[in-house]
Amino acid sequence: MRLSGPAAWGGQTELADETVLRRAPTERDVAKLAGVSQSAVSRAFTPGASVAKDTRGKVLKAAEALGYKPNLLARSLATRRTNIVALAISNLENPFYVQVVKELSDRLHETNRQILLFITQPGADGDAMLERVLSFKVDALVLAAATASPALAAEFHKSGVPIVQINRPSGLSGISTVCGENELAGERIASFLIAGGHRRFGYVSGTVESSIGKARLDGFSKRLKGHAEGGIQVAYGDYTFEGAAEAARKLLTSARPPDAIFCASDYMAFAVLDVARRELGLDVPADVSVVGFDDVPEASHPKNNLTTYSQPASALVVETIRILDAMIEKPGRPARRREVHGDLIVRGSARLPARGIVTEDTQRIWRE
Amino acid sequence: MRLSGPAAWGGQTELADETVLRRAPTERDVAKLAGVSQSAVSRAFTPGASVAKDTRGKVLKAAEALGYKPNLLARSLATRRTNIVALAISNLENPFYVQVVKELSDRLHETNRQILLFITQPGADGDAMLERVLSFKVDALVLAAATASPALAAEFHKSGVPIVQINRPSGLSGISTVCGENELAGERIASFLIAGGHRRFGYVSGTVESSIGKARLDGFSKRLKGHAEGGIQVAYGDYTFEGAAEAARKLLTSARPPDAIFCASDYMAFAVLDVARRELGLDVPADVSVVGFDDVPEASHPKNNLTTYSQPASALVVETIRILDAMIEKPGRPARRREVHGDLIVRGSARLPARGIVTEDTQRIWRE
Repeated sequence: MRLSGPAAWGGQTELADETVLRRAPTERDVAKLAGVSQSAVSRAFTPGASVAKDTRGKVLKAAEALGYKPNLLARSLATRRTNIVALAISNLENPFYVQVVKELSDRLHETNRQILLFITQPGADGDAMLERVLSFKVDALVLAAATASPALAAEFHKSGVPIVQINRPSGLSGISTVCGENELAGERIASFLIAGGHRRFGYVSGTVESSIGKARLDGFSKRLKGHAEGGIQVAYGDYTFEGAAEAARKLLTSARPPDAIFCASDYMAFAVLDVARRELGLDVPADVSVVGFDDVPEASHPKNNLTTYSQPASALVVETIRILDAMIEKPGRPARRREVHGDLIVRGSARLPARGIVTEDTQRIWRE
Repeated sequence: MRLSGPAAWGGQTELADETVLRRAPTERDVAKLAGVSQSAVSRAFTPGASVAKDTRGKVLKAAEALGYKPNLLARSLATRRTNIVALAISNLENPFYVQVVKELSDRLHETNRQILLFITQPGADGDAMLERVLSFKVDALVLAAATASPALAAEFHKSGVPIVQINRPSGLSGISTVCGENELAGERIASFLIAGGHRRFGYVSGTVESSIGKARLDGFSKRLKGHAEGGIQVAYGDYTFEGAAEAARKLLTSARPPDAIFCASDYMAFAVLDVARRELGLDVPADVSVVGFDDVPEASHPKNNLTTYSQPASALVVETIRILDAMIEKPGRPARRREVHGDLIVRGSARLPARGIVTEDTQRIWRE
């Protein structure tokens, strides 16, 4: 195989045939063919690096002719960036976390970065899995429905790998967090349900340890004080479909079944809707109102038509990347805490208050 | 900070403090502290490499004291393995593909490998995205609900990166494939529905170009010959929930609505069930039988209770890894074709034939 027309771009020496045939082309081969320095080739393939336009053109032509692909990993050993971001995530059955993966993948892709995926078991000790993250050189670690122990967080800190945690607060100074408006959401949902004339309240939480589950309940019960007959009935759905179905059976077949149930995720709310309608033959919302959390795409499907508090995966991911870029840029920075704005999206699964509902961009929203 | 007790393991020289404090520990630091060669450290961290037990113990102790993590990426430049497998996937809304991701992640994790994730757009030209895979050094590429052009497949072949494609046949000699029993499944579902007394048949396919959609229809129509009044009505659901809902409306409100609908995925079957029951008030299966494909976990939820043909993600993934390991081992091997066995899982969404149903491991299965 002979290279086509290199002479046409300035009479550079052709590479010997075997160079092209027997092994993958290197930066050096490209430099030789383009008649530029190896460093120029490297700079031509480094986003933001300075290189003359003319030089860059020669490099790209030579690279194309040779079938050369810049090896980002090898280069990263020099720049100390790998363009790989580790994502530790559990609970992919929940469409909210599928959204997080997709948004994170899309956004990172825009800057030529990819996700190295670590799927952890919800609730299980993720440390063994997360330790392995450090065996791969990554620019950062994103935790979603996953947590790291203080010891592990310290190890990442020592290794200069920033951690950003989505949807879980953290008391650790080494971990930045991006969450939804958990407590505020709980308060707003309570106001909405009170205004809708409800008197008996249930809450389907995730796990007993879940800090976001607790924050949402804190806001919910604070605002319900004096309005909830017999207090709030709490059941734990373990963030699973089956767990939430069981929690719904418990609440709805109790001596004093709630006439409004707030669920800590849309995914659990779908299970509650199914039990209420199909198993117990209840009318939603005439017999019981159901409110979710997240506003996943399925929440707006006619079959669910779920009233829910939004926690946009896109906004969470934008904030996450903003923080991790700042941390990669200047590793010493203190961890950040960000809260992403949401809204109470009013659909058909909860009885409506007489007033307070506004329409924004075709979406009905509750404004106290 | 002083290292604790290195003298106790054989009087090795302590490293100067700044070595430990100012930068991440290297293989060389570990070798120095353990009193062994750098090559011994490298071998101690390479699975399967030969190293004396005693030496290995010293290396591990020194590595722990220093907080050293073997850098798999840097090592891979020598061994030519990165322990990273690229996965290009689309359609994560479909729980079948979530299963594929989880199974692949779990199985690769068992051999200390991780997924580098590339989320492609279904139907879109994935080549631009897949080209980027080659910028990262990966051991292999798995395609799931994604395809590569002949030109790109050739490029991967040249780079020595094997490709295994899940759930899509391929005519390309460079691409191995692992599929379910598409045509056979179509035939069996047809027999089952004929035996159940159905006379008018509909098929909700994915996209017009889908080769698996076509293979399933081929089997389905071959067996239905002479049994389908007025032929098979075909509608395309684009593998999406909304698309399948629209396809169901078209079929079920036509002049001669089918009394049995076969759907090319469970995910689309869920949409068909919803339209039939909630929108059109039909009784499933008294008015219309619905059969899916995949047997995702949601298919067995009481609310779906879907009769479907199984295509186990776990078995597909096991075969996929078997092939890619063989290809990584001996890059020159010809591509392989594997078909993974499935069964017609009988639940409540289709009318039952008088006979032919057997129970295996608590599962009801159709046997002609």
